[in-house]
Amino acid sequence: MAELQILNLLLVLVAAWAGGILAKRLGFPPILGELLIGIILGPGLFGVLETSGALNTLAEVGILFLMAYIGMEINFKDLGKASWPGLLAAIGGFVVPFVLGYYTIILFDGTNIAALFVGIAVGVTSLATKSRILVDLKLLNTRIAYVLMAGALISDTLALIIFAGIIGYVDVGSVNAASLSWVAGKAMIFFAFSALIGIYFFPVVGKLLSKSKTINRTVHFTIMVIIVLGFSELAELAGLHGILGAFMAGLYIRDGVFSRQVFKDVTGVFHDVSIGFLAPIFFVTAGFNVSLEVFQTNLLLLILIIAGAVIGKIAGTALFYLPSGHGWREGVTIGTGMNGRGAVEIIIAGIGLQMGIISTEIFSILVFMAISTTLTVPFLLTWTTNWLRKRGELVMQDARKGYLILGANPLGLYIAKQLQEHNEVVLIDANKHLVHEAKEQGVTTIHGNGLKEDTFEMANALNKNTFIALTGNSEINLLAAQLANNSFYIPHKIVLISAGEDGAGLDLLDPMGASSMFASKTDMAPWAYKISANEFKEHTVDVASDCTTREWVKKHGKHRDILPVLIVGETGYKRPFHYKDSISANEKVIYLE
Amino acid sequence: MAELQILNLLLVLVAAWAGGILAKRLGFPPILGELLIGIILGPGLFGVLETSGALNTLAEVGILFLMAYIGMEINFKDLGKASWPGLLAAIGGFVVPFVLGYYTIILFDGTNIAALFVGIAVGVTSLATKSRILVDLKLLNTRIAYVLMAGALISDTLALIIFAGIIGYVDVGSVNAASLSWVAGKAMIFFAFSALIGIYFFPVVGKLLSKSKTINRTVHFTIMVIIVLGFSELAELAGLHGILGAFMAGLYIRDGVFSRQVFKDVTGVFHDVSIGFLAPIFFVTAGFNVSLEVFQTNLLLLILIIAGAVIGKIAGTALFYLPSGHGWREGVTIGTGMNGRGAVEIIIAGIGLQMGIISTEIFSILVFMAISTTLTVPFLLTWTTNWLRKRGELVMQDARKGYLILGANPLGLYIAKQLQEHNEVVLIDANKHLVHEAKEQGVTTIHGNGLKEDTFEMANALNKNTFIALTGNSEINLLAAQLANNSFYIPHKIVLISAGEDGAGLDLLDPMGASSMFASKTDMAPWAYKISANEFKEHTVDVASDCTTREWVKKHGKHRDILPVLIVGETGYKRPFHYKDSISANEKVIYLE
Repeated sequence: MAELQILNLLLVLVAAWAGGILAKRLGFPPILGELLIGIILGPGLFGVLETSGALNTLAEVGILFLMAYIGMEINFKDLGKASWPGLLAAIGGFVVPFVLGYYTIILFDGTNIAALFVGIAVGVTSLATKSRILVDLKLLNTRIAYVLMAGALISDTLALIIFAGIIGYVDVGSVNAASLSWVAGKAMIFFAFSALIGIYFFPVVGKLLSKSKTINRTVHFTIMVIIVLGFSELAELAGLHGILGAFMAGLYIRDGVFSRQVFKDVTGVFHDVSIGFLAPIFFVTAGFNVSLEVFQTNLLLLILIIAGAVIGKIAGTALFYLPSGHGWREGVTIGTGMNGRGAVEIIIAGIGLQMGIISTEIFSILVFMAISTTLTVPFLLTWTTNWLRKRGELVMQDARKGYLILGANPLGLYIAKQLQEHNEVVLIDANKHLVHEAKEQGVTTIHGNGLKEDTFEMANALNKNTFIALTGNSEINLLAAQLANNSFYIPHKIVLISAGEDGAGLDLLDPMGASSMFASKTDMAPWAYKISANEFKEHTVDVASDCTTREWVKKHGKHRDILPVLIVGETGYKRPFHYKDSISANEKVIYLE
Repeated sequence: MAELQILNLLLVLVAAWAGGILAKRLGFPPILGELLIGIILGPGLFGVLETSGALNTLAEVGILFLMAYIGMEINFKDLGKASWPGLLAAIGGFVVPFVLGYYTIILFDGTNIAALFVGIAVGVTSLATKSRILVDLKLLNTRIAYVLMAGALISDTLALIIFAGIIGYVDVGSVNAASLSWVAGKAMIFFAFSALIGIYFFPVVGKLLSKSKTINRTVHFTIMVIIVLGFSELAELAGLHGILGAFMAGLYIRDGVFSRQVFKDVTGVFHDVSIGFLAPIFFVTAGFNVSLEVFQTNLLLLILIIAGAVIGKIAGTALFYLPSGHGWREGVTIGTGMNGRGAVEIIIAGIGLQMGIISTEIFSILVFMAISTTLTVPFLLTWTTNWLRKRGELVMQDARKGYLILGANPLGLYIAKQLQEHNEVVLIDANKHLVHEAKEQGVTTIHGNGLKEDTFEMANALNKNTFIALTGNSEINLLAAQLANNSFYIPHKIVLISAGEDGAGLDLLDPMGASSMFASKTDMAPWAYKISANEFKEHTVDVASDCTTREWVKKHGKHRDILPVLIVGETGYKRPFHYKDSISANEKVIYLE
């Protein structure tokens, strides 16, 4: 085929895929593997892969889609809620390395504009690389994770805005007050105009789309692509870069504006196409432009930039984090977590190279900086979190908090009251009598149908961390968990599945990653009766050695009719007993008999 | 951005979208609007849009993905089942216009290879354009629809194989026995090798992927893209064209090999990206290459090609269809339905132009042929089907036949026995007693859990046309309908939703396009009791005038406790009474009281 050299494209994709998998296996983000394989197999070293116009086109569409996807993933509300500590960490983690990077380039006789570019690249924090390592280090529910996410998010938004500011000036020949204010004015007009469209026009489009039932997912995707490219073009017209427009379009394309299901579907396609196909082409070909000669010709600059990036990021974050009152150790930990540079850095560096603002040498240094800082994250973050953990300073916190429990029957109410000791709990039930009873016992309870979005909204489901479905009807439980998953993205779903062969089975939990309550099939009614008639005993037992909940049930529940309901952590913190959990040796299990 | 001219890409996409929508509104396939808007706004006429390397790259990726998607949609089993009449129609509809097209070009002093190319283009039938018009003309359950689908499918496969045969010879300079057999040999090796990989290697990959639970949809998409590009490259290595490889890859990527859910997800992404984004770029830019001068310089050839295409397709189909014994009128009707040329024709013509096999003039003629033949379809097919309908010769038939009913309770059994008069019916129930009872009464009944794939497989769900969920538990009904929809693609789902506020509501039917049984919320138990105790009356009433089922229920069910169960068509053919249906004046309604 004329434009497309299929073999070259195929090799680049296979290389990206292999590099990404290898990086993931070793605990690093895929982008690291993609960059490295691009450097190794690219024209500079082995020359197996080569650049082409077709690859550049696909890569450019890829970064537009990726920036749009990053924008879609950012929720304005999250930004607003990002909290004081997150803002502090973001500013410190951006400003200090920015200044260090800037003056390093000035010191080496770089242009002012190149220095600003390097400053941004050094200041950026990677968003996408976070979640995996937080899971690995079991940090997801800690305050650190929350600050890290918010910090990376604010820092990237900050970097993109400053980038927008700088890029406008590049084309301006004579730097005088009039031309500068013209540049600034155009940028302002772009931001104002895109906000107008995003805030007032998108909801209209969203309503039109949700009304016409014939329009399917494909049409939605087409329209979103047109919106993303339209915003890119607006940004370019305003003298900014297209990726900023794509990012802004992504920010305004969000649920609430478009229907939840549509938003989820379309972001899914953007994710698959950008991260699964086009963006890796960009990162592999970015590796093509890396010159290994910098290790000989510019070694001092390379070392200074990397050192400035690492020290600036960690020290800057820790320093600015002090006013949060969470201590310098937590600040250092957050600094090590924010030390990676990801997609946004490479994209900015790539644009700088393409526009001739930075040289191949500086570009290569920035890529090596991204690689080496990203390499440090797992090691440094493991080390600092263990340090905090040993000192007992690892504070738990979560953006989504508390439990949403469907079913205010005696068993649900019993569990709700126990969880309520340390957590926010909201009960839902359609039975007025049960709702009344639960309210009397001091549990926040919503009266409504557990399969309706309205009810979930009244229960503030978007802020809940765990959904437990505890009605006697397994199928209602499953459908409600689907709603919690699909429309409210509640990360943890625990579902009661009744015993018996004829109803829903445990296999229906897998597609949404839900877990089975009580770690085995259980009928609600007998236990609800026992509780309401007060014909039960509550036991609390120590756990002899680390085991999974399944193993516990196998060991203890074999010959007796017992129901393990909660696990009590070291600090007295209770959590529900379900299939996808394990119990440590110093924890306790509460069971009913 | 360097390679990508965002504005041009944006304009092309907006033009494609607008053209596609306009065409759809007027009852034509989107490709028609895309081609026309490309001709009108392209460099030839208004010059608003222009071609570029970036557009060509995206268009080429687009047709690779589109061919892969077309391949994925073709099921080997369907091809096997395509039946004798379908094969006859396909061969007749391909061979006769092929011969006419071939000799027309030869007559006008064209080269042998150009004549072969035009022959294929004239012989092709469009696959994608069918389904919409079949719905509009209410033909979906007729034998014509079935033959049309099978015919288009076989004809396209046939065209692609002959195309493969021809394309191999284009590069061969000296035509002698040795070089010709080398070309044929390479093609054979490609088909054999791809079959080996598809049949033996894909299932292994599929098993690996389904085992590792960490692999998500994005990774699946990446792997499928690599497979599609890999097959394309293999085809190119064998001297064939890349689109053939993509098509073959699509043929072998199917459910059964990869898990059902994965297959559905990934084909969805291929569909969105190709049809929603990249392929329209190909069709719009194909319009760019059209020269309007052919109307002056080559008018006779243009008329002859179009006449040959239309007459050859219709007469050829009707002629070859005679041995089926279904009469020449049905043959003519099928011929008018197969007269449209779609994506595959334009792709083949585009390749011919790109390779220099056909001139711009011939290419333009082929595009106008595609446009004008596609334009004829709605008019001619409406006319011929009305003709058949008036003569009472419109025979009903469906690829998927009969009903799958969940719930062998007395109400389910009652409906099953009535539907069984004209249809294949299979009941499913988990209750052994009910299963036994239903079997005694002569209904095929499967004992099993209605929420398990195994049970559906035992009931041969992949061949069923309609799924009715009739248990007393609305949520079981919904989950079962989800399974029928997601894993067995049963086109019609009718779900009983119980009355009452606390359970599943009618809103949960929309996402899978299901309809509500009895056209209103109904409790199963009272009616099941009445039927088993024989305390009910069955009434059959005429319908005064055309109305929807909703209107019927509003009119008749307001003050009395009745249950409309079936609609009896003119010919005595019974169908279930549900929300998404309407009743004609000469039909009857059976209701219980």
